[in-house]
Amino acid sequence: MFNHIQNNDFASIVKGRRSVRNYDENVKISKEELREIISEASLAPSSANMQPWRVAVVDTPEGKEKLRPLVRFNTLQNDTSSAMLIIFGDIQSYAYAQEIYDAAVEQGKMPAEVRDSQLKTILSMFPTLPRELLVEVAKIDSSLFAMQLMLVARAHGYDTNPMAGFETDQVAKAFDLEEERYVPVMIISIGKAKEEGYESVRLDSEKITFWR
Amino acid sequence: MFNHIQNNDFASIVKGRRSVRNYDENVKISKEELREIISEASLAPSSANMQPWRVAVVDTPEGKEKLRPLVRFNTLQNDTSSAMLIIFGDIQSYAYAQEIYDAAVEQGKMPAEVRDSQLKTILSMFPTLPRELLVEVAKIDSSLFAMQLMLVARAHGYDTNPMAGFETDQVAKAFDLEEERYVPVMIISIGKAKEEGYESVRLDSEKITFWR
Repeated sequence: MFNHIQNNDFASIVKGRRSVRNYDENVKISKEELREIISEASLAPSSANMQPWRVAVVDTPEGKEKLRPLVRFNTLQNDTSSAMLIIFGDIQSYAYAQEIYDAAVEQGKMPAEVRDSQLKTILSMFPTLPRELLVEVAKIDSSLFAMQLMLVARAHGYDTNPMAGFETDQVAKAFDLEEERYVPVMIISIGKAKEEGYESVRLDSEKITFWR
Repeated sequence: MFNHIQNNDFASIVKGRRSVRNYDENVKISKEELREIISEASLAPSSANMQPWRVAVVDTPEGKEKLRPLVRFNTLQNDTSSAMLIIFGDIQSYAYAQEIYDAAVEQGKMPAEVRDSQLKTILSMFPTLPRELLVEVAKIDSSLFAMQLMLVARAHGYDTNPMAGFETDQVAKAFDLEEERYVPVMIISIGKAKEEGYESVRLDSEKITFWR
């Protein structure tokens, strides 16, 4: 983890993050580095540590061509980025519950009794929750992952652009993912910036804070 | 921004983040520092830069007492943290659109013509969107803010715990916020850790990645 980053300056990573739409088409991020970026972003927290985030990495010419008509006005990002990362929330994330909790016990991070009682709760609760609630949890947790991924990308020397404007009802099917299970959250383009993004303004903290 | 942080090591901030439930009750974070943390977290991106995140900062004994029955099994965090931050999504975030885009023009970050055309789009589109979609956008964007806030907190020497288990249908009203407008997303406790959080495991990146 974090063995191949170029920038470890937290303040500069956060302050310098911009939405970058135009990337250097000659820069290709290796699968190995994309795996590292995804693993590092995965350190985000999630409900019951179910880690419902899933990433369809679209980095081949064929994939990009398939995605192009689905990204509306975001074709520049699709055409120039190293990869388009379609972030999905898995509403059957509990399928990995046993594996996650067993690994925690094996690695000495959780007593077996805690695993047993928590697994029992998770496996009796999650599958009975209404779909709407599972979708909501998956989207919130996947957004935590997405934010951390955008920062991790900058540590690796890349920039990103999170996009909500795409055909959310078509992306799962287009990339051979079960529509009922994988709910699209956002698309993040990633690559080497060719043009800097615009600086943008923020509301004063007093406008968004209620003291109670 | 970031003038008062204690740790600027990105990798250590991300790797060391744990869900901390037990805090040193003697450590009170000043309003000034909470404002800084909120402002720094606000550098997160959002749809059309509408910044729909809102934070009810519960840091008084009266506020904590009011919140206590609403946080279910999370009373330890409520009792010991410096503050409980209730993160809401504002589904009328476009009420600030004019102010945000005017400020961008005043600060030389956007040409006036761009502001005019984007504002026209935002103000004709957002208010007509179905409530369900506005809620979804507000929750996703507020989650981006929430993740950045948890990292910023660590830069300031504090720890956090994101919580989904609370009475989502009661918190707005309990803290005198318009229920129709402010949609609860999560609660984040913040304070000085008394006990370290548990290390947890993550799925291998290949389990969560689809190469396309």
